[in-house]
Amino acid sequence: MASVQEVLSGNRLSLARLLSQIENDTPDGRAALSELFPHTGQAHLIGVTGAPGTGKSSLVNQLAHYYRHPPENKTPKRVAIVAIDPSSPFSGGAVLGDRVRMRDLAGDPGVFIRSMASRGSLGGLARTTSGVVQAFDAAGFEIILIETVGAGQAEVDIARLAHTTLVVEAPGLGDDIQAIKAGILEIADILVVNKADRAGVENTERALRNMLNLAHPVKRVYRHHGTLETVPAVPASTTESPEQESVWVPPIQKTVATDGTGVPELGDLIAQHKAHLEQTGDWEGRQRARLQAELDGLLQIILVSRWRDALSPERYQEVLEQLIERNLSPRQAVEELLNGAPRS
Amino acid sequence: MASVQEVLSGNRLSLARLLSQIENDTPDGRAALSELFPHTGQAHLIGVTGAPGTGKSSLVNQLAHYYRHPPENKTPKRVAIVAIDPSSPFSGGAVLGDRVRMRDLAGDPGVFIRSMASRGSLGGLARTTSGVVQAFDAAGFEIILIETVGAGQAEVDIARLAHTTLVVEAPGLGDDIQAIKAGILEIADILVVNKADRAGVENTERALRNMLNLAHPVKRVYRHHGTLETVPAVPASTTESPEQESVWVPPIQKTVATDGTGVPELGDLIAQHKAHLEQTGDWEGRQRARLQAELDGLLQIILVSRWRDALSPERYQEVLEQLIERNLSPRQAVEELLNGAPRS
Repeated sequence: MASVQEVLSGNRLSLARLLSQIENDTPDGRAALSELFPHTGQAHLIGVTGAPGTGKSSLVNQLAHYYRHPPENKTPKRVAIVAIDPSSPFSGGAVLGDRVRMRDLAGDPGVFIRSMASRGSLGGLARTTSGVVQAFDAAGFEIILIETVGAGQAEVDIARLAHTTLVVEAPGLGDDIQAIKAGILEIADILVVNKADRAGVENTERALRNMLNLAHPVKRVYRHHGTLETVPAVPASTTESPEQESVWVPPIQKTVATDGTGVPELGDLIAQHKAHLEQTGDWEGRQRARLQAELDGLLQIILVSRWRDALSPERYQEVLEQLIERNLSPRQAVEELLNGAPRS
Repeated sequence: MASVQEVLSGNRLSLARLLSQIENDTPDGRAALSELFPHTGQAHLIGVTGAPGTGKSSLVNQLAHYYRHPPENKTPKRVAIVAIDPSSPFSGGAVLGDRVRMRDLAGDPGVFIRSMASRGSLGGLARTTSGVVQAFDAAGFEIILIETVGAGQAEVDIARLAHTTLVVEAPGLGDDIQAIKAGILEIADILVVNKADRAGVENTERALRNMLNLAHPVKRVYRHHGTLETVPAVPASTTESPEQESVWVPPIQKTVATDGTGVPELGDLIAQHKAHLEQTGDWEGRQRARLQAELDGLLQIILVSRWRDALSPERYQEVLEQLIERNLSPRQAVEELLNGAPRS
């Protein structure tokens, strides 16, 4: 497969073609991903999530600019942006966002932007995103920004995919910060209050800080069997040495994405989080958890699809009708199908 | 199983015990559900969703009160409330909501309230909720109100479970109604603007109406193979007779849940939606789609768990390590496991 070598050597056109193959889940795309996989594991994956109207896209744009034009003591990094656009007749922001980005970052060979629609299931999107991120990683992009609209399960999937997750807030989106839904704060490694030049920024920041204090900081631990657990950050015993308790309490950073205020500081926090992950072993833990989640997800899909292929559609329809007539309960229907299915 | 007869005859204690068994997914609970299943299919399932702060719980409370004490020309109905509380260190509204409900509805044998936490996966919660709803249905509750906090995938699962889905908004939660996320409007059968005595109610209503108009009304169609599709509500050809195009455009109802304003009108709209579903055949279509989704979900879980049981943990761990060392790609790892697994 010639294109794999071209992707590895930095050919943008080959990369673009490969991304389309991955999105369409073609046999060529799958084969290329397997070939590229040994070259992955180098990139820093940064998830960026938050409610519509918080200015996520502009912030991602500014972060990309920061990594391309860093302060003097740092080297520029190659940046990929994966913008996930939940499909809806009401959306439309992504297109505009892309246009703004094109203007600022166009022509820079160190930047690659890919928008993805979430037509189909969220689970399917997570899988495709994982493949796209692997392709960017293998192609040598050191920073991969994964942006999604805050929509529940999608954030959790991002947290699984990313090393560092930014949750973006903005003033004026509701006094009770209702944008911070149950569970969103839990996945945040860094909280960003964007549009910090607007009225009400103190309220937003104070509310976030209160929620953080309220939450009794927890520490995310990746067990060797790959599951993610949260444990109290405060040591149960005071005799534990403090060096062993390296807890990351999500910092709050104010930014103004339209003029870049606070973006270098945010870049520093992201670098600090990376260093923290490396020191604590969580960097490897997150990689591990991510790969295991991908393995389990793929296993499930392939197992079920092989079984479905071996089952006659007539048999399935027959059992479904029995279920709908309420002659069989759902569990009885499953038993009927599993015991009646031909074994491969 | 004596308790099944007792549940069918209306014994509350037996029902409460059964609900716990269902939530804990015990063998007894599963067996009882299968026995009860032929008695299901009578209840009207009403999903109520919306962002925190919209007053959903009070509204559900008022709706329960309305069905228990209807206008003179209607018969009271038995009401079950299933309140789904996404687990999070930040939540806590549900407990308060329950206390308010207890005061208003306590002692009425025609009302049963069950709060469910979503510890564990969202998929798992959807399954458990489905079982709980089936138990209430079999036990003769004619109205089942399923309340959840707006959090993405959960709403979609509710829409699958419910015949009628209410999406609740309130003024003052952000100028751009950011609470209405991509996809939320799509699942609404009725839009409720609660807290309609507050300032800004006209803005909220206008914004909702604009979004509805913008959205080119679509019609939800349940195909015989059980999938849900949306088709344009506006007939492609003007020669189609209008009687065949019975489209439900989600109405907007203003309410003040604290004093009951607008609740009888909301009750009427819910009844109209039920009549619409029955006329168009969508009532049966939604039942069908729901049962098929449950069948497919259960199939997947049982299939994967049986396969996992047959696989040695050492073998799985071995392949996982190869994946983490990047000697195998995720897809290669799956092939390795599937081809190496003993067949049952």
